[in-house]
Amino acid sequence: MKKVAIIMGSDSDLPVVGKAADILQDFGVEYEMHVYSAHRTPVECREFTANARKNGFGVIIAAAGMAAHLAGAIAAGTTLPVIGIPINSQLGGIDALLSTVQMPSGIPVATVAIDGAKNAAFLAVEILALSDETLAEKLEAYRVKNTEDTLKKDRNINNK
Amino acid sequence: MKKVAIIMGSDSDLPVVGKAADILQDFGVEYEMHVYSAHRTPVECREFTANARKNGFGVIIAAAGMAAHLAGAIAAGTTLPVIGIPINSQLGGIDALLSTVQMPSGIPVATVAIDGAKNAAFLAVEILALSDETLAEKLEAYRVKNTEDTLKKDRNINNK
Amino acid sequence: MKKVAIIMGSDSDLPVVGKAADILQDFGVEYEMHVYSAHRTPVECREFTANARKNGFGVIIAAAGMAAHLAGAIAAGTTLPVIGIPINSQLGGIDALLSTVQMPSGIPVATVAIDGAKNAAFLAVEILALSDETLAEKLEAYRVKNTEDTLKKDRNINNK
Amino acid sequence: MKKVAIIMGSDSDLPVVGKAADILQDFGVEYEMHVYSAHRTPVECREFTANARKNGFGVIIAAAGMAAHLAGAIAAGTTLPVIGIPINSQLGGIDALLSTVQMPSGIPVATVAIDGAKNAAFLAVEILALSDETLAEKLEAYRVKNTEDTLKKDRNINNK
Amino acid sequence: MKKVAIIMGSDSDLPVVGKAADILQDFGVEYEMHVYSAHRTPVECREFTANARKNGFGVIIAAAGMAAHLAGAIAAGTTLPVIGIPINSQLGGIDALLSTVQMPSGIPVATVAIDGAKNAAFLAVEILALSDETLAEKLEAYRVKNTEDTLKKDRNINNK
Amino acid sequence: MKKVAIIMGSDSDLPVVGKAADILQDFGVEYEMHVYSAHRTPVECREFTANARKNGFGVIIAAAGMAAHLAGAIAAGTTLPVIGIPINSQLGGIDALLSTVQMPSGIPVATVAIDGAKNAAFLAVEILALSDETLAEKLEAYRVKNTEDTLKKDRNINNK
Amino acid sequence: MKKVAIIMGSDSDLPVVGKAADILQDFGVEYEMHVYSAHRTPVECREFTANARKNGFGVIIAAAGMAAHLAGAIAAGTTLPVIGIPINSQLGGIDALLSTVQMPSGIPVATVAIDGAKNAAFLAVEILALSDETLAEKLEAYRVKNTEDTLKKDRNINNK
Amino acid sequence: MKKVAIIMGSDSDLPVVGKAADILQDFGVEYEMHVYSAHRTPVECREFTANARKNGFGVIIAAAGMAAHLAGAIAAGTTLPVIGIPINSQLGGIDALLSTVQMPSGIPVATVAIDGAKNAAFLAVEILALSDETLAEKLEAYRVKNTEDTLKKDRNINNK
Repeated sequence: MKKVAIIMGSDSDLPVVGKAADILQDFGVEYEMHVYSAHRTPVECREFTANARKNGFGVIIAAAGMAAHLAGAIAAGTTLPVIGIPINSQLGGIDALLSTVQMPSGIPVATVAIDGAKNAAFLAVEILALSDETLAEKLEAYRVKNTEDTLKKDRNINNK
Repeated sequence: MKKVAIIMGSDSDLPVVGKAADILQDFGVEYEMHVYSAHRTPVECREFTANARKNGFGVIIAAAGMAAHLAGAIAAGTTLPVIGIPINSQLGGIDALLSTVQMPSGIPVATVAIDGAKNAAFLAVEILALSDETLAEKLEAYRVKNTEDTLKKDRNINNK
Repeated sequence: MKKVAIIMGSDSDLPVVGKAADILQDFGVEYEMHVYSAHRTPVECREFTANARKNGFGVIIAAAGMAAHLAGAIAAGTTLPVIGIPINSQLGGIDALLSTVQMPSGIPVATVAIDGAKNAAFLAVEILALSDETLAEKLEAYRVKNTEDTLKKDRNINNK
Repeated sequence: MKKVAIIMGSDSDLPVVGKAADILQDFGVEYEMHVYSAHRTPVECREFTANARKNGFGVIIAAAGMAAHLAGAIAAGTTLPVIGIPINSQLGGIDALLSTVQMPSGIPVATVAIDGAKNAAFLAVEILALSDETLAEKLEAYRVKNTEDTLKKDRNINNK
Repeated sequence: MKKVAIIMGSDSDLPVVGKAADILQDFGVEYEMHVYSAHRTPVECREFTANARKNGFGVIIAAAGMAAHLAGAIAAGTTLPVIGIPINSQLGGIDALLSTVQMPSGIPVATVAIDGAKNAAFLAVEILALSDETLAEKLEAYRVKNTEDTLKKDRNINNK
Repeated sequence: MKKVAIIMGSDSDLPVVGKAADILQDFGVEYEMHVYSAHRTPVECREFTANARKNGFGVIIAAAGMAAHLAGAIAAGTTLPVIGIPINSQLGGIDALLSTVQMPSGIPVATVAIDGAKNAAFLAVEILALSDETLAEKLEAYRVKNTEDTLKKDRNINNK
Repeated sequence: MKKVAIIMGSDSDLPVVGKAADILQDFGVEYEMHVYSAHRTPVECREFTANARKNGFGVIIAAAGMAAHLAGAIAAGTTLPVIGIPINSQLGGIDALLSTVQMPSGIPVATVAIDGAKNAAFLAVEILALSDETLAEKLEAYRVKNTEDTLKKDRNINNK
Repeated sequence: MKKVAIIMGSDSDLPVVGKAADILQDFGVEYEMHVYSAHRTPVECREFTANARKNGFGVIIAAAGMAAHLAGAIAAGTTLPVIGIPINSQLGGIDALLSTVQMPSGIPVATVAIDGAKNAAFLAVEILALSDETLAEKLEAYRVKNTEDTLKKDRNINNK
């Protein structure tokens, strides 16, 4: 199975972005985590990106705040699917959301919610599951559990 | 190769959403186009979604405006990757963008730019290309052409 | 008298949404409270909605945050009046407000203020009071009391 | 059957607001249309509102733009359900939306989408249908037709 | 000298609005403070407004949050200058700002900054000072002091 | 009677700002119109402002777009009441609105709606009318006419 | 004297960005214009940037719309001052503004107004004028002319 | 080497703005810090600005919140490059950002991120470095160090 790369623009994003790693671990998806900045370490960022496909990666998750160029910069350097997580550090994260999602034609970034690290991981798993039956079944199982958890909460709220 | 479904909430979205179909055609990706509304045809929308994987679809693209629930509603009914296109019909499309991207944990929607139909298609191709070498090569070729086109424009602007 | 259903997308919304229940209780309106998610428990949500009218409900209140599809999803499944409460969980709640209020033609959601659970209940009572004289009188009495409370505050502020 | 009042702040709102009247006519709901302004004709507006219930009205629809106080001012003067239509005249209508929906506790306004006159009418019909079986059936029939129309569009788009 | 009325929509606004009273007191301007709500005590609010001119008021300051109709409602009932203070209670106060400032032609509200109670008072003093030489001199003296205070801060910052 | 100054940042604002002049003319208020820019003609702007009171002005209206500093710059140079009109030239005028209204303590700008030139004039008249009985009566008469006009529109709409 | 580079993300930006070139020409500043995209021609963009200082450039102006990464990507590759022009192509340009201005610490972009190509050029001239007395004098002369033009407009408006 | 002036509108901005001074000190750039307000001390602000060039300043950094006119007012009084820092005191700082960046043609302000004091200093250093080889080398060295720091963080995160 292909690996997932999780790139964050700053290690201060780890408390949010780490949740993506947790989900991947739960699903048994191998991942690698890096701190690369589109602006501070453009060379290393490009090098990682250029070699990602041949190094066995299938999806790249990129998280950044403010003028969040990271996911777009990575998307420019690979034709692997790139998932962008806008990080809230100012203005409620609307700056990072727009900087991540409003990409020009030809270079898409699959954007999830502000601070939506979990969904970035779920989306990566969905993509990998297209060619991995077991993973697809785990996803279905997770959905069933998710439904059951919500229904349990429903029963609890009615007992109050 | 798996197919792509393109679902739009209203046939008035066709001028924008049709561009996704054009890209898919260029890449030789089979697709099916539907007008399903999360609110007006919820039954048909659910049925299509529930059977999408076994009917040979690999990715679902969903486009809607205003309180754009379509992509999220579809994502709730499948573990296939779902790509959301926020359509601008009021407020510059910021309502559709937020309604599409701000999904709760567990049900991701891979959101592209407002009216970003082309990138929805490119993203779908990138996902399918993970298990299709030829498609991956076409993507690389497209990027090269895209670069060359821009460089040609650069030369032209300097000739002015 | 018809009952009111209060549906919330997540039990974490209870501290806000519970205020709707308190108001209904004050007015002697029977209600049922549920945790149903448009995305996590779509089946149960639909089932409840489809049977709401024949199960004696007259109004459905739905509360959700972020890409708040819940009220709209419920409105798509019934012709009962549906009241939407946008919950503030990111961006001050503007995402939930737009996702709730910007509904397409044919499927209205009666939207109240961000976190406006009390007004959702008052609106439900106003609707039920149309065919319940006693309830209408209680509403009038509440307004009178509301006025008196404000006037008492006015007198107090002048004593300061 | 109770009547619906449609109040607009300015006769320049008629092209938008008139669509509410058309829907009511389609459903055979009696209505009365007025130009009353919370600021320019506060006396007449109050008088109409104070007597609305005893004059046979069941719902009041109020449409206004900019600092859209009209629906709120009417809601303050009656315990009938009041539906607010934010009219887009500046800033895409976000000023009118916030001025209409962000009402204080105790005085709810059932707000619909910006320029959402049709949904204001549908919501009014839903409310009146609670005590009018025939109207409820018409609503169900409309939904069925709405679904069929969308499905026809779906078939057409696949023929292209 | 004419008096200033300070009206607030809720006594919870007092911590902000009270600063207007302090400024007026500093300038020796007589004022009266009231809790009147456009929605909860419309009758008292109107009565106060209608009689304000003949009761010796020259300016009315009105403070409210959310769908802040108070200043506009007062402005509709008098031709005295009305100053509006948008109170921040949700969305950073942008809802109250737009609800206060975006008034229709013919009924102006002189709007100050979000939570800008001091400036509401300064503006009231400036208006009254047009026909009161002593007050105008006090304003000039305050400006001089304000300048000196800032220059002292400048000297201090350079000593650091 | 004191005069009103109307200052605009650019003569391209004249189509909007000219409406303020029309209103003043209707009320028989003497005015002077100038094109002064806080940034392009700061010296002339300051000079005019510094001498405005002794040159017989009672109110200064200032209109500017984008980073609209004009009203604030004028307010810094006089203790006369200054009325700011935010002009829409980009972003729907929200930039000009915030640049005009969000003034620091001590230097108020009485802000009206985006492009709200008429209300700037009405506000100026209200302020001057505080010490001019005739002007106050004209304002009352205008309100009565305004009400009658709206009521006529109401009658017309019911005839349709 | 050092040269100025004007880089635009797309040749469709030329009608706006060309105004920067006109100003530079007026001031006799040598410039070079390029179409380079951070996403479509990252290699050429980097190469140009890396060699800009030694190729005689003193300032780089970069213009882009939507998720406008161009100025930031260039700023990451040089320590020359980089001026960013946010281009309005969606949402009134607020996406491009935030993507350009909200840069992380260490990599500044000197951002001007949305579509503010002229000011980008003026800023570049101001920077180059620091070590070029003649250019500084031209700037002063331009300001004087700018003032005179505005004063002429002022005289004209008073003649009307 | 030319000096940098750091002007802040209020000494309460010092915790943010002081970071600019720290960076300048690190680079050995002489600076002077002042508290001048466009509104409270316009005379001193103008005087400082008018003499800045001949007093040896090469760049002026100006920081202000809300209706942040300071940078623009300074830019109007000099042809030195002026850098604006929008300070967040309300609305997440979007008011200060728009008031700083949306300058009219002819009077540019080089705007950095909200509360972006460090980048204001880096930009000032970049500008001065155009005619100071040593400073240019220090900037390059800083970038190298910045890259190394990020890479160290990358190694650390992989060790976790």
